[in-house]
Amino acid sequence: MKKRVAVIGAGPSGLAQLRAFQSAAEKGADIPEVVCFEKQEDWGGLWNYTWRTGTDEFGEPVHCSMYRYLWSNGPKEGLEFADYTFEEHFGKPIASYPPRAVLWDYIKGRVEKAGVRDWIRFRNPVRWVEYLEDKGKFRVVANDIKADRDTDELYDYVVCASGHFSTPNVPEFEGFDSFPGRVLHAHDFRDALEFKDQDILIIGTSYSAEDIGSQCWKYGCKSVTISHRTAPIGFDWPDSWSEVPLLERVEGHTAYFKDGSSKKIDAIILCTGYQHYFPFLADNLRLRTANRLATADLYKGVVWAHNPKLLYLGMQDQWFTFNMFDAQAWYARDVIMGRIKVPSEAEMLKDVEARVAAEDAATSDYGPLEYQAEYVKELVAETDYPSFDIDGATEAFKQWKKHKKKGIMTFRDHGYVSPMTGTMAPEHHTKWVDALDDSLESYLQT
Amino acid sequence: MKKRVAVIGAGPSGLAQLRAFQSAAEKGADIPEVVCFEKQEDWGGLWNYTWRTGTDEFGEPVHCSMYRYLWSNGPKEGLEFADYTFEEHFGKPIASYPPRAVLWDYIKGRVEKAGVRDWIRFRNPVRWVEYLEDKGKFRVVANDIKADRDTDELYDYVVCASGHFSTPNVPEFEGFDSFPGRVLHAHDFRDALEFKDQDILIIGTSYSAEDIGSQCWKYGCKSVTISHRTAPIGFDWPDSWSEVPLLERVEGHTAYFKDGSSKKIDAIILCTGYQHYFPFLADNLRLRTANRLATADLYKGVVWAHNPKLLYLGMQDQWFTFNMFDAQAWYARDVIMGRIKVPSEAEMLKDVEARVAAEDAATSDYGPLEYQAEYVKELVAETDYPSFDIDGATEAFKQWKKHKKKGIMTFRDHGYVSPMTGTMAPEHHTKWVDALDDSLESYLQT
Repeated sequence: MKKRVAVIGAGPSGLAQLRAFQSAAEKGADIPEVVCFEKQEDWGGLWNYTWRTGTDEFGEPVHCSMYRYLWSNGPKEGLEFADYTFEEHFGKPIASYPPRAVLWDYIKGRVEKAGVRDWIRFRNPVRWVEYLEDKGKFRVVANDIKADRDTDELYDYVVCASGHFSTPNVPEFEGFDSFPGRVLHAHDFRDALEFKDQDILIIGTSYSAEDIGSQCWKYGCKSVTISHRTAPIGFDWPDSWSEVPLLERVEGHTAYFKDGSSKKIDAIILCTGYQHYFPFLADNLRLRTANRLATADLYKGVVWAHNPKLLYLGMQDQWFTFNMFDAQAWYARDVIMGRIKVPSEAEMLKDVEARVAAEDAATSDYGPLEYQAEYVKELVAETDYPSFDIDGATEAFKQWKKHKKKGIMTFRDHGYVSPMTGTMAPEHHTKWVDALDDSLESYLQT
Repeated sequence: MKKRVAVIGAGPSGLAQLRAFQSAAEKGADIPEVVCFEKQEDWGGLWNYTWRTGTDEFGEPVHCSMYRYLWSNGPKEGLEFADYTFEEHFGKPIASYPPRAVLWDYIKGRVEKAGVRDWIRFRNPVRWVEYLEDKGKFRVVANDIKADRDTDELYDYVVCASGHFSTPNVPEFEGFDSFPGRVLHAHDFRDALEFKDQDILIIGTSYSAEDIGSQCWKYGCKSVTISHRTAPIGFDWPDSWSEVPLLERVEGHTAYFKDGSSKKIDAIILCTGYQHYFPFLADNLRLRTANRLATADLYKGVVWAHNPKLLYLGMQDQWFTFNMFDAQAWYARDVIMGRIKVPSEAEMLKDVEARVAAEDAATSDYGPLEYQAEYVKELVAETDYPSFDIDGATEAFKQWKKHKKKGIMTFRDHGYVSPMTGTMAPEHHTKWVDALDDSLESYLQT
């Protein structure tokens, strides 16, 4: 009997898992049966854009946290697949900060080439996963939405790749329940033009805050006010921007901040992060972790220490994304295929502890980034995932950080060297601030 | 061993179930153990307002479909509890169309008096319910969110009272993915002031459409355009309103309709109804029904014909609401307590068929309303739920319909006779169009 593997999610992580198995099969290995459950109509996870918010046409919570006009906020050189370069996909070098549609196309290109689409059950949200001790297997119940029936099956392994940037973390502030405008989380932000000519209040200081603020500014909002808990972001913002301490309360259209200042606002956008949320996993399988580089309870950041037949992909906070998911997926594959033996639970938890300590110690400017680079290196070295110039990718991230400091509205005009091909990215034909057309066709004109 | 009953949801239906059991206990009966699972922090179901949309602070889909300034859109005389009148709760007669906070207070009053709050596990979304044939019991898994652990228990009966006006039905129209403004479903509508000075397009012709349009108009939107599939609503709308055929597409800010007309719009509100959605129920327990008066597969509109240990409350479309849920809950209680015997599955399905046929035949103006009145009478007669003047309540609904035709912005200024106390409702101190304060304190000043 072939072993059976359930992969939950067909986003970048889940697709990496399918590609990992397919790549082993291509090399002649006897691979398990792999079934991938995907809630959405198509693959790509977060990169599969929808105008919808809240719940989708079948009542399922909308996975998409992306918005129109979203361009990569990090250099593509940091996320490139080692086994499928941008040059291979597009037939030429492209600029370094592609818009969403371009990256989605790239993700799809690899798995189309691999021919794994029929491993995926689309529109099949997983309802319930539990481990049956007596059988030594997982029971996976999913709803085949279009057939309007459940499947109820046993699997030897489960790979949870459902992401952790889809379930928003939404704090409440005094007065939200009577604010006479829209209060939304970044997860529900779709089109910056909705906020044209408006005074926008953003709560939060991470990537969503800076990027959604930039989008609103680029598409004509009147002003952007960013409220921070700890410290301002500190970029050289445009004139219509200001950074203020934490919001204290809103009264009517007026927001009051901790320093006693106030501002008239039209809309409030909460850029307050996301939650790890796995309602479909039984209690004893559910990852509970902060959004950090060294997650709780995952040996090598992948293997659920309390039951190593359960694996998680992409549950870390990230600089490295696609290629880190790959490194993890290849590692998970080799655990499942018995090529890698995992140690005892106690030893796995020791590994977790050591990783947490190492992350906590990496406090220098580039410390966390280098910590994750070392992690990717470690995993890549343990499988046959193509080795690549991880220091080169790290260098692209370092330059990216410098370019952001130099100009938050101009950093996307820079290019970097591919860690896979060594090619220097060409300049895009239009500066980001002037590029209002984010289509693939337009972008590829460079 | 006491029988165990799981009630899913602590809204008006679920609370009716708790009150039904408590009322039997009060009269000396030996009642089963009742555990009510509630996803929200407090009771009241839809009537428990939140400013939140999408998912809540714990990642659970937001149940609330209500909005600020919501006033009952039907006369309170049609929904009054027979065992707990408005006069008893408020200590005096009140006007006929109370705002949300007043009705919430009323719902809570009865169950506070009954003392059933500790039967409820708040913040406990149910994750999975299945019927175990070998045990003849239901397995109910719920997540105790605050303790961050699951409960996994057996129950003899399950009462599903989770409502069906929380999961929106959201159609797509051409151009939605590039509309430069907000597209939202009524479920996510919260504050009409967000749409002040805007041109609003509403899709749909049912209660949400007329009421959300009225709210936007009352709070200062520039114009309301209502798009219908079949026929216009036809009320005597204010000057800034128009009714148009179905939307064909949007291009930029322009909406194009089937008749070739077009209109510049700022926001699109989909008042396109709700879905019956039970992701936590196994396939063979899941109600699949249209939103109609005679639901599929429910004997007496309550008992799941395929397994009569499963009961559903409030799954019909409704004129009668609270007191119909009561009639159903008392009936369900008596089935569970063995006071009422249900016939064979085949006979139950024949009952369903007859109800569907009777509803289909009730095509006159007041036919469907009278059909539901007869249904409530039928159920009330079979239990010890206090009998009340159902024809009187029906009469209130008939007058309400007339008053709406006479003036869609003035119908709420009318009063009706209580079917419980016979008291004529006083006039409210302020006409609805002028009453911008929807607080309980303000309303009770009459």
